[in-house]
Amino acid sequence: MIDEESRTTVLRRPATYQPPRSWRTWLLGRPLATADAEDETIGKKVGLAVFASDALSSTAYATQEILVVLGAAGMAALTFAFPISIAIVALLAIVTISYEQIIHAYPNGGGAYIVSRDNLGELAAQTAGASLLADYILTAAVSISSSVAQISSAFPSLFPYRVAIAVGLLLLVMMINLRGVRESGTTFAIPTYFFLAMMVLTIGLGFIRYVAGSLGTVPNPPPMETVETAQAIGLFLILHAFANGTTALTGVEAISNGITAFKEPRSRNAGITLIWMSLILGVVFLSVTFLSVQIGAVPSESETVISQLARTVFGSQGILYLAMIAATTIILIMATNTSFNGFPRLSALLAIDGFLPRQLAFRGSRLVYSWGIMALTLIAVLLIVVFQASVTGLIPLYAIGVFLSFTLSQVGMSRRWWKIGRLAEGEEIKQPASTLRHDARWRLKMVANGFGGLCTAVVMLIFIVTKFTEGAWVVLVLIPLIVLLLRAIHHHYHDLAKRLSLASFDMAPRSPRHRVIMPLSGVHRGTLLALRYARTLSNDVTAVHVSIEPEQTEKVRQKWDVWGEGVRLVILDSPYRLLIEPLMDYIAEVAKGRQPNETITVVVPEFVTRHAWENLLHTQTALTLRFAFRTMPGVVITTVPYQLEEDGPLPDTATSNNKQEAKS
Amino acid sequence: MIDEESRTTVLRRPATYQPPRSWRTWLLGRPLATADAEDETIGKKVGLAVFASDALSSTAYATQEILVVLGAAGMAALTFAFPISIAIVALLAIVTISYEQIIHAYPNGGGAYIVSRDNLGELAAQTAGASLLADYILTAAVSISSSVAQISSAFPSLFPYRVAIAVGLLLLVMMINLRGVRESGTTFAIPTYFFLAMMVLTIGLGFIRYVAGSLGTVPNPPPMETVETAQAIGLFLILHAFANGTTALTGVEAISNGITAFKEPRSRNAGITLIWMSLILGVVFLSVTFLSVQIGAVPSESETVISQLARTVFGSQGILYLAMIAATTIILIMATNTSFNGFPRLSALLAIDGFLPRQLAFRGSRLVYSWGIMALTLIAVLLIVVFQASVTGLIPLYAIGVFLSFTLSQVGMSRRWWKIGRLAEGEEIKQPASTLRHDARWRLKMVANGFGGLCTAVVMLIFIVTKFTEGAWVVLVLIPLIVLLLRAIHHHYHDLAKRLSLASFDMAPRSPRHRVIMPLSGVHRGTLLALRYARTLSNDVTAVHVSIEPEQTEKVRQKWDVWGEGVRLVILDSPYRLLIEPLMDYIAEVAKGRQPNETITVVVPEFVTRHAWENLLHTQTALTLRFAFRTMPGVVITTVPYQLEEDGPLPDTATSNNKQEAKS
Repeated sequence: MIDEESRTTVLRRPATYQPPRSWRTWLLGRPLATADAEDETIGKKVGLAVFASDALSSTAYATQEILVVLGAAGMAALTFAFPISIAIVALLAIVTISYEQIIHAYPNGGGAYIVSRDNLGELAAQTAGASLLADYILTAAVSISSSVAQISSAFPSLFPYRVAIAVGLLLLVMMINLRGVRESGTTFAIPTYFFLAMMVLTIGLGFIRYVAGSLGTVPNPPPMETVETAQAIGLFLILHAFANGTTALTGVEAISNGITAFKEPRSRNAGITLIWMSLILGVVFLSVTFLSVQIGAVPSESETVISQLARTVFGSQGILYLAMIAATTIILIMATNTSFNGFPRLSALLAIDGFLPRQLAFRGSRLVYSWGIMALTLIAVLLIVVFQASVTGLIPLYAIGVFLSFTLSQVGMSRRWWKIGRLAEGEEIKQPASTLRHDARWRLKMVANGFGGLCTAVVMLIFIVTKFTEGAWVVLVLIPLIVLLLRAIHHHYHDLAKRLSLASFDMAPRSPRHRVIMPLSGVHRGTLLALRYARTLSNDVTAVHVSIEPEQTEKVRQKWDVWGEGVRLVILDSPYRLLIEPLMDYIAEVAKGRQPNETITVVVPEFVTRHAWENLLHTQTALTLRFAFRTMPGVVITTVPYQLEEDGPLPDTATSNNKQEAKS
Repeated sequence: MIDEESRTTVLRRPATYQPPRSWRTWLLGRPLATADAEDETIGKKVGLAVFASDALSSTAYATQEILVVLGAAGMAALTFAFPISIAIVALLAIVTISYEQIIHAYPNGGGAYIVSRDNLGELAAQTAGASLLADYILTAAVSISSSVAQISSAFPSLFPYRVAIAVGLLLLVMMINLRGVRESGTTFAIPTYFFLAMMVLTIGLGFIRYVAGSLGTVPNPPPMETVETAQAIGLFLILHAFANGTTALTGVEAISNGITAFKEPRSRNAGITLIWMSLILGVVFLSVTFLSVQIGAVPSESETVISQLARTVFGSQGILYLAMIAATTIILIMATNTSFNGFPRLSALLAIDGFLPRQLAFRGSRLVYSWGIMALTLIAVLLIVVFQASVTGLIPLYAIGVFLSFTLSQVGMSRRWWKIGRLAEGEEIKQPASTLRHDARWRLKMVANGFGGLCTAVVMLIFIVTKFTEGAWVVLVLIPLIVLLLRAIHHHYHDLAKRLSLASFDMAPRSPRHRVIMPLSGVHRGTLLALRYARTLSNDVTAVHVSIEPEQTEKVRQKWDVWGEGVRLVILDSPYRLLIEPLMDYIAEVAKGRQPNETITVVVPEFVTRHAWENLLHTQTALTLRFAFRTMPGVVITTVPYQLEEDGPLPDTATSNNKQEAKS
């Protein structure tokens, strides 16, 4: 198709075109065309299933993480778990109300990064971005570790292989995501509702047996493990247990990031789904904690509290027990999948804004952000290996990022209501008014979001103080480092754009002169092909030989007399057997003396071997020269490949007449 | 200096020229000029010291390796060690006589590789080369492991760190050799004669106390370790112990490789030195074995037999005990150094003959074969780590190579005498007569060398049979593999030389047409600089843009209308978001349709970042394209670098007049 209006030709692939197949096709499925991207919207019921897995799955470990702290003060202290859980559910209510506001204010999706960027400025946005990135990684590591803990509770013989199983599962999730999850939301609904059904059955039967007095305690409980040495019950211990339990709140923000997936009216649908999710989460979490305390469940690496609860309610190894464990394992793996959804999208967003490498915004053959998926997997695998797939080990790193992003988005919202208020009262503010929708109840909402932000900030501080030495300090060091990295990357791209700008660019007249320098180590077919090419570029060609061994130099000189076509040969003496440095010095000297608009081209003959291993048998001088010269301004490097293929005619000599050897 | 006879200019460095300094200067010392290479010749006494360290040091472990096998049949079996040692010394005598012949026949140095190449053909030479290479590596690994065993005998607390110490020592030896050993032979003489003096003192005092009846047995002997489960004394056990003990012979060939280092008459001097060395070796080895059996020394990883002997003779922890341990440790490290001498020289010889990568024949900044030194270190470190610096663990791999090369060189010599005999009797043989010196006693010498070869072949077979399952099979697999590798490399170089040959080369007329293709992802300064360059090459320039995102393509199209200087733009639609493949297809299509003598040049703009890490922020398309195109015949790739330096003026625009933005 020729575009008549410009000198542009557009070549389209025929409709039947299929991209080339490779090992990736086998692993990931056939490539998808850009036009194949689809948009599916979902209703409330399916939306709950898709977005709730992260939040609901945290009930699988939150109770246990409370008990593991309280256990340090003896079995009696475990009864504090229920009141602590009530406080956590209160916090959940506050956070839910705040996110409900965000959903209505940002109908196009309002993660902590976007809310902070809009309302609090760049630094806050970068901080939110950094903490969210850290958090997605930890969600993946914690969820997969917890899922393996459920498996090894039911099958203790698998306990020694937990790290390998966790890494294997993570790679499986990665592979599924690299293929691209193109299943409908309904597919996701099945495991979530299966988990909810099993949970309701467990809790329901548990309460019935509790009321009937037949619940009893855990038969053969595992040995108790705690994170601290024995101590008395005190404020620090209570706060520490509370901080651990707040991991139940992780995942609440998922819906606010994914509003666009809902059917219209999407804000309303998403808001209702959020409230439903929080209600279910609160009820399940409180029930699990209550029943766990009643049955005297003990925190242990070898058997999860959920397993102890299911075992006590259903009896050991029954089909219902195994179904409950399976449901918990599956929902935890789905929670991992949430990270695989969120991390690549967020990093693509950051990459588009110029804060992360651009590659993260490229969609792979299956239309997913492959680089982001692989980066997430790599770091999560590292964490799992370092922490030996221990949930209790990972928890101190977790949740700081969650609460930092909670705080930032709520403070951001509060600021937004304040601006709306200023606008309503007729004041001028910097932000364009169009992005702010008037709301009569801005005062109430400002207070609600402000209070929410305050609460999450306090929880974050409690978390940092009580878990500082256990590992929280790592996150406090890491998040600023990530922010610095984001800024350094941004600076680079910004600087690049400025330098590439055409604003003050002037097309100088074309170079009238062109000098060619051609390094050579010997005189052979490859050299002569390069010489032939060099002479098409310019009449001013100089061949350069670095003399390392006198005999070799003499040979080059003699052969050049015969074959050099009268081209000047410069021999650089190299008493210290250096190859690159004398060449660099010589070319720098020539470049220094060049006239304005004179271009210097270095033509390097390069062997192309048939097999990759054969490259080890060559010194790769062409490659070395390329890297050495790339920083020299005004010098262009050209590689003339000489293919060493055994089959087929010698390149460029197929038409030769095999004359006698020339004698000049 | 202008050479009047041709168009050649030779640029010499001024006499005061100093090569550039880098981190290597600090590590390795200032570079040495090729002219600095020196030749020092040495006499018999110094020669003994320089070449004997490898052979003499084997007395530090040979006795122990006999005992470790006999120990399996109980303490009583240890008394067989002495008769076995006598058999080994007899073998030593045979080998010495054979090598004496070689020294006189090859006054320019006659390693197994050269003797085999001259007399037995290519395959034998390659086999000899492979076994020698394997052997040099094992000498380094065994000697350094044994030296660490001596150290940890005296200081048992260092035993857990033996692998780290061994690797550290090896790296130290590597560093010294990379700097280049430029000490005079006298420096080497000191540790050898110190070891000999201490050995004579230990053995002498041992015999005096033995005769006086006051020698006694080892106080607090270490726990005995054996390589086999308990078994009765039998032929297999005796042969196995004999095979282990033959490690005493390793290093005997060293002098025949280094004849050129001797003062004239060098063959005579070298021959006398060889006989002296063998005499000393035989006496020391027999004495150590005799006394070790008398004192009831037991084989053990935690204390060497030498240490037990010295402790019994001198008393524990005395100054003489420590001096003996120090002397043994140092001579073992010097034996390692022998490998660092031999391996790089042999691999350089093989590289020059085209059997190993050419880089091995390059001399580094200090005039040593740096690549060979580093390759040796790398493999030896691997062996030490795998075998946990255990001499007994490494021994089964050792000595097969030694005896294979002994056998090959003696069979080769025998063949040589036979040829000389044929020649003397007036027959015609293929080899030019000039390389064969007539010798009246050729029959005797043929028999002597033949017998020697037979003996060493038998010993090698004993070695293989008795130690097959312990690890000897590895060597039997490895040596043929190395031979195959040598041949594959040779084939590659041979083929290369044929393809590069100018024998039937015809300089076709210069290409009259030159097409330029310039891929671009955006239109910016870098692109336009590349365009400017492309237009100096040819008037037939085509810009190509792969369309992955429609908006980006539209931007490119609009900007090109303004800035493209009327150059044709081809847009390649890429529905599957592939970048390289559509470009490759397009260029292949263009290349297919090219006329004879038409050259296609691909001009790629490339960013040059200031910091290496910044490269991670770019997709390195230029690099990827380069690798993709290098196998496409008739296509030349040119990279136009665009330096993104913040300081200094923008390259090539310093002279621009900052005109208004052009509007075409």
